[in-house]
Amino acid sequence: MGQSKIDVAAVRKEFPILNQTDLAYLDNSATVQKPQRVLDAVTHYYQAENANPFRGLYDLSVAATDAYEDARQKVADFINAPKKEDVIFTRNASESLNLVAYSMGRYLNVGEGDDILVGIMEHHSNMLPWRMLAEQTGAAVHYLNCEKDGSISADAFKAALTPNTKIVAIAEMSNVLGRILPIEEFAKICHEQGAIIVVDGAQSVPHSKIDVAAMDCDFFAFSGHKMYAPMGIGVLYGKSQWLDKMPPFMTGGETIDIVTTDRIVWTEVPHRFEAGTVNVGGAVGLAAAIDFMNDMGLDQIEARELELTTYAMDRLKAIPHINIVGADEPENHHGILAFTIDGVHPHDITTILSENNIAVRAGHHCAEPLHHYLGVPSTTRASLAFYNTTEEIDRLADAVAAIRKEMGYDE
Amino acid sequence: MGQSKIDVAAVRKEFPILNQTDLAYLDNSATVQKPQRVLDAVTHYYQAENANPFRGLYDLSVAATDAYEDARQKVADFINAPKKEDVIFTRNASESLNLVAYSMGRYLNVGEGDDILVGIMEHHSNMLPWRMLAEQTGAAVHYLNCEKDGSISADAFKAALTPNTKIVAIAEMSNVLGRILPIEEFAKICHEQGAIIVVDGAQSVPHSKIDVAAMDCDFFAFSGHKMYAPMGIGVLYGKSQWLDKMPPFMTGGETIDIVTTDRIVWTEVPHRFEAGTVNVGGAVGLAAAIDFMNDMGLDQIEARELELTTYAMDRLKAIPHINIVGADEPENHHGILAFTIDGVHPHDITTILSENNIAVRAGHHCAEPLHHYLGVPSTTRASLAFYNTTEEIDRLADAVAAIRKEMGYDE
Repeated sequence: MGQSKIDVAAVRKEFPILNQTDLAYLDNSATVQKPQRVLDAVTHYYQAENANPFRGLYDLSVAATDAYEDARQKVADFINAPKKEDVIFTRNASESLNLVAYSMGRYLNVGEGDDILVGIMEHHSNMLPWRMLAEQTGAAVHYLNCEKDGSISADAFKAALTPNTKIVAIAEMSNVLGRILPIEEFAKICHEQGAIIVVDGAQSVPHSKIDVAAMDCDFFAFSGHKMYAPMGIGVLYGKSQWLDKMPPFMTGGETIDIVTTDRIVWTEVPHRFEAGTVNVGGAVGLAAAIDFMNDMGLDQIEARELELTTYAMDRLKAIPHINIVGADEPENHHGILAFTIDGVHPHDITTILSENNIAVRAGHHCAEPLHHYLGVPSTTRASLAFYNTTEEIDRLADAVAAIRKEMGYDE
Repeated sequence: MGQSKIDVAAVRKEFPILNQTDLAYLDNSATVQKPQRVLDAVTHYYQAENANPFRGLYDLSVAATDAYEDARQKVADFINAPKKEDVIFTRNASESLNLVAYSMGRYLNVGEGDDILVGIMEHHSNMLPWRMLAEQTGAAVHYLNCEKDGSISADAFKAALTPNTKIVAIAEMSNVLGRILPIEEFAKICHEQGAIIVVDGAQSVPHSKIDVAAMDCDFFAFSGHKMYAPMGIGVLYGKSQWLDKMPPFMTGGETIDIVTTDRIVWTEVPHRFEAGTVNVGGAVGLAAAIDFMNDMGLDQIEARELELTTYAMDRLKAIPHINIVGADEPENHHGILAFTIDGVHPHDITTILSENNIAVRAGHHCAEPLHHYLGVPSTTRASLAFYNTTEEIDRLADAVAAIRKEMGYDE
């Protein structure tokens, strides 16, 4: 992979929020900061092209439609979707996953006797919708455990499937462990057994090149706000063999071709799944964020984040009483370092770090079952983006190293 | 009400899109344009306060939480909701209405033998979710007709209810007829008969002062983008007596208090209904839009729009072969003028107007059953906001007056 060529000092100038204080922003898995060019793209849309898209016959509405559909094509290209109609715009990854659970659950007629396999490390957003579906239909949810280092072998994956498994829901990358799983291999196993695989890509998309065609997943969900786009826009990719047959989830304007008092003809994909006025501004922001990431280079982002992760793990591991959850190797963390300090509560750690203007997060990170499974009630999580610096990591490590003494321990 | 005191020329300078071309933007019921101060508020949030809100213990996350919850309070004050927890942020009015249909439908255990009463003039967004609910549960949908002028008397409303009516879904203001209905009176009738009333306020909120407490509706839904806020943010107001008991609709991060592999404890309202990372930027934009509307003054906006509507109706009615649907009186149109021209297809009208850079919309305006009921397949709709001018209306009327001759008619 080699040393990253990104000029971090130059890049940071594009992020107003990173320049205005002595803040060390290390909560990037929760949400990343936005470069000015993304904000400018959204503003420009509203200043020059805003209208309600579709069905509008005037120039501005055509411009808004083009802006929205161009963004869809850009997303499709970014994740290597076969065609832009396979890309549905949602509010966030959570909505994407709820859409699949509701709509694909109905299409597959999920019910008693059916199994749904869910990763134990899932974010609640890829766990609760499946448990709701099971509760409402009589299907059973089973859990797919991982090793302590976050890995799941193909054999373990295969063994967890039953002949009744209809759906497997799994994150490509855990928001606590940071390891990327071999989805391509898992998808093959699923399809051999007649199950579909639904992938939560919220954490992996910002850090690695995504290829849904190679992965051969049935659905892939992610959020814009974790990849330099504004909040309020997300994506569901789905194979057209499913999307074309699935009933709508939310209904309203633009989801139909014909409505009379006794007849409804649903419209084609993707519009069938985008009820009401769509978020063109958000889609334009997401397209600008993709341009930004492509300009940086996905390989360069990955290289830079590995440098930073390696540096951070080296520094944190050298501190006594620090326990990082997950793998030993930096290349299996993708910037996510969740840890505990012996004898100190994660909330206290986070509060002390906050007093030093270091932004990290404490808790179960919306992955409470994983924490139970790991045997820790909560962790402190530092999560890096490529715009972070070794100086920020030094501040984190220095502050962490001082915490036990601050809490009254001798060492 | 008196003459409006709004300085329209000054206000228009705040809208970059209104100044850059010779565009007459008369499609405001589809979406309105955004003042610079709203765009600036969103940009400022991302430049200075952006983080994932809730559970974050550092300053920036607290700032983001405050920005989001302050916006919620501002919405509550704007519609006179009893408390901010009665306000749920959604993507748009369509999502708000789908949320009620799914979640309240489950809570009320809607099923065979139950009736749902839906206005014949409803936008598809307040019709299809109820028909989906009926289809899935065995309940029956009945339609509430209106007079040709858009009115519905209390007696007609009462007569349409059955002892089995559990839910009434109705727009406060039709997006085609523009008449505001007496929801307060309807709500009283519903409650006397044990039904709830779900109000689509998407069209009324931009044009009139809303008081959900006085209205005594059970739910009230609207979109930000029709009231000068960005796309991608909407609101559902609900009475806490319902919200507190309703099961979640979409599930994920922030919707729970406890999750283990065999137990889920849903969290309190409103967070139970806001799955995944929320749209803080959108909420901040909506708050800025409310400030903008309050600065203008709701009474002034209403007065100005009545002036414009009166002027437009006078001009259009003077043209032979023009038929405006709905009431004769401008005060029952709130800026919405849907019309036909004898012998000319609405799409042709709209295309010709577009060639003159006049933006209006043709079609059934996502209210296809209403058009069938009115006996017209489609209409051309000009819809006014307070920032429009009499010059723009003159351009519309002059162009409309020339259309029949352009299409080859003698007069």
